[in-house]
Amino acid sequence: MASPSDKVTAGKIKAVGIVSAGDMGSGIGSVLIDGGMEVVTSLDGRGDLTRLRAGEAGMRDVGSLDAVVEACDVFLSVLVPAQATDLAQRVADAMRRTGARPVYVECNAISPKTVAHISEVIGPTGATFVDAGIIGSPPKPAQAATRLYCSGPDTEAFEALAEFGLNVRRAGPEIGQASGLKMVYAASTKGTTAVWTELLLGARALGMTGALMAELAPETNDVSRKLIDSVPDMPRRARRWVGEMEEIAATFEELGLTPRILLGAADLYRLVSETSLAEQTSREPNPNLESMLDLLVQHLRASKPLPG
Amino acid sequence: MASPSDKVTAGKIKAVGIVSAGDMGSGIGSVLIDGGMEVVTSLDGRGDLTRLRAGEAGMRDVGSLDAVVEACDVFLSVLVPAQATDLAQRVADAMRRTGARPVYVECNAISPKTVAHISEVIGPTGATFVDAGIIGSPPKPAQAATRLYCSGPDTEAFEALAEFGLNVRRAGPEIGQASGLKMVYAASTKGTTAVWTELLLGARALGMTGALMAELAPETNDVSRKLIDSVPDMPRRARRWVGEMEEIAATFEELGLTPRILLGAADLYRLVSETSLAEQTSREPNPNLESMLDLLVQHLRASKPLPG
Repeated sequence: MASPSDKVTAGKIKAVGIVSAGDMGSGIGSVLIDGGMEVVTSLDGRGDLTRLRAGEAGMRDVGSLDAVVEACDVFLSVLVPAQATDLAQRVADAMRRTGARPVYVECNAISPKTVAHISEVIGPTGATFVDAGIIGSPPKPAQAATRLYCSGPDTEAFEALAEFGLNVRRAGPEIGQASGLKMVYAASTKGTTAVWTELLLGARALGMTGALMAELAPETNDVSRKLIDSVPDMPRRARRWVGEMEEIAATFEELGLTPRILLGAADLYRLVSETSLAEQTSREPNPNLESMLDLLVQHLRASKPLPG
Repeated sequence: MASPSDKVTAGKIKAVGIVSAGDMGSGIGSVLIDGGMEVVTSLDGRGDLTRLRAGEAGMRDVGSLDAVVEACDVFLSVLVPAQATDLAQRVADAMRRTGARPVYVECNAISPKTVAHISEVIGPTGATFVDAGIIGSPPKPAQAATRLYCSGPDTEAFEALAEFGLNVRRAGPEIGQASGLKMVYAASTKGTTAVWTELLLGARALGMTGALMAELAPETNDVSRKLIDSVPDMPRRARRWVGEMEEIAATFEELGLTPRILLGAADLYRLVSETSLAEQTSREPNPNLESMLDLLVQHLRASKPLPG
């Protein structure tokens, strides 16, 4: 157990706590375990898929959240955006009950303002707070492709995890910088995918797909081909992306920029979430673009009659 | 002068009317004139730049709108979206006053529903109505790069203009198809540019441009490089694009899709329109990306204090 005055360096980190063990959490866990770090988690009340992922990654289930907080020196919060604040509150309560003060690393896709709010939840416990933003797919052992940016006045403990296989980069000294970077980067990928999904759907509903594809000439135009190819990769992530788009919208609004582009992206991913496309897991192949668009157009038509 | 029962073929078209002579209208005019067609326009009450463009293109100013309607066999409406319905009403009035019935071609970037409304304005005159959608930059003589899609039950007169140098393509038999294609295509370019302008601005305002650019690696990533490069090409078009984004939003909404992505794009282009960047003409070089972003961030900060 680390007291807030300790400098936590690699040698002093005995265990990392990760909640929850989704694709991203279990990916990070498996990298750390492969690098020789112990990873503890709490599977109380969690579903079969989470238990399967945690087991495959080699994470140790210590039972309750209190037990995780007591067993780890660094705690990683890796969830869907909507649960980030609630988890921080529960961890702060667990810290008070147990007296343990692991470094709290806020890894979720949330706006700098939401991160600031969460740092105020953790702050009174005295635990060190680190802002982090993850760019890339869930990491795998022996691959350093996924970047874990961190920012804040004291990121040493999190940076020390680089010695166990994570690709950690410091974004700056302020809480909010790592998350801000994650938000604008996610806008570049998921915001763009939302625009392209919507226009491909619009063309399909208008019966103009052939003419549009000829105009975009995806067979000869690298940009349009890559953007179109990214669309079928989205549905299984659509549910998670709804909240993330809302956080990016909030990030832009806090800066005086319009939130509507990304709120519309959230609308679009919500539409996809309403269909069976969103049931797919990462273990199944992506849908075919045409059948995906057809299913979504049928869903639209069932919701609202189309002209013609 | 064509009566509604005439089939207007290339040999029967003596003159084309174009209102107004902006970049696009004068570009189309110059191609037709180069191809041997007479082009008439009305410069009553128009500004110096419009007169200059019309003169350079070789368009003949016949004075009033009534005179244009009387002098042409095919009338092209080429304006900003917000003026399309008003021009149609004025042309319908001119047709009634003069008895002339040129084919009316609705070339503006407007939603299929707005096109349907305009066809109802022209319909009672008995004039043939053609829906058209222009994809590409203003055309130039001896270049067939810009595509002019048309749709509707009788597009023969417009298609005949291909013989005078325009790249005309038929999109289908229904009013709204050509415009619908234009809308979804414009979403792919201008919608994507809006997302990228916003995220580059967000990164600049957060002080994270360097880290973002490293993540996007524009020097090695064709997609991000091309999308970033498209941003400085936008400001001089921002004013015109506000209304166009609103028409694309309406197109999506009519299909049951969210209008918010494109309404947000309109917000973003409105923001750019409020700055000196929008004063630039097509005869001046594009701004540098960095100075463009700096100017916009200053404008944001003047409107709303930023944190930090």
